[in-house]
Amino acid sequence: MEIADLSVRRFAADKLQKLNLFETPRFFADIYCLEPGQEQPAHTHEGADKVYAVLEGRALVRVGDEERELRPQQAALAPDGAAHGVRNPGPERLVLLVFMAPAPGK
Amino acid sequence: MEIADLSVRRFAADKLQKLNLFETPRFFADIYCLEPGQEQPAHTHEGADKVYAVLEGRALVRVGDEERELRPQQAALAPDGAAHGVRNPGPERLVLLVFMAPAPGK
Repeated sequence: MEIADLSVRRFAADKLQKLNLFETPRFFADIYCLEPGQEQPAHTHEGADKVYAVLEGRALVRVGDEERELRPQQAALAPDGAAHGVRNPGPERLVLLVFMAPAPGK
Repeated sequence: MEIADLSVRRFAADKLQKLNLFETPRFFADIYCLEPGQEQPAHTHEGADKVYAVLEGRALVRVGDEERELRPQQAALAPDGAAHGVRNPGPERLVLLVFMAPAPGK
């Protein structure tokens, strides 16, 4: 049985870190770790949906033209074709659980 | 922007409760709430993968012929075609975050 640990963390000064939990042809699940000020710039996936779920810290999530600040236990959906990105406004470190279906390139 | 709250909970004496967070043609994300002794019996989805992630309590997860007890922050993958189920062995309530891609019937 394939088991993953949602408590994995790895931060780096130069850019956000992505730690993969699972990947199949149908989805991936990652942990993203962002130092204050780090971001995933807005981008678009055609034919795939993504979820950003905040585990620790605060997230400024953008989907389309809308931006919202999310706290732990809140999750946002970036549906197929919508530009989306996330930034850590600080002062805490940000940890996200990220789910995307299907995985890119699948 | 569609926002969901991972801290939603609803328990019932007669059976496990499923609270939907998001659903698209490509996936669903639910919170499952299980009183001690409640279970999702083993079943199979052809062409879909599922993740059970433990948020609170303990979970006895079965995938194929294997059974594992998972604690909070642990997640298990039930890949396409593998029989899978979950049971709350108690004594605490069990809360799971469940992802499935694609959503059934899509």
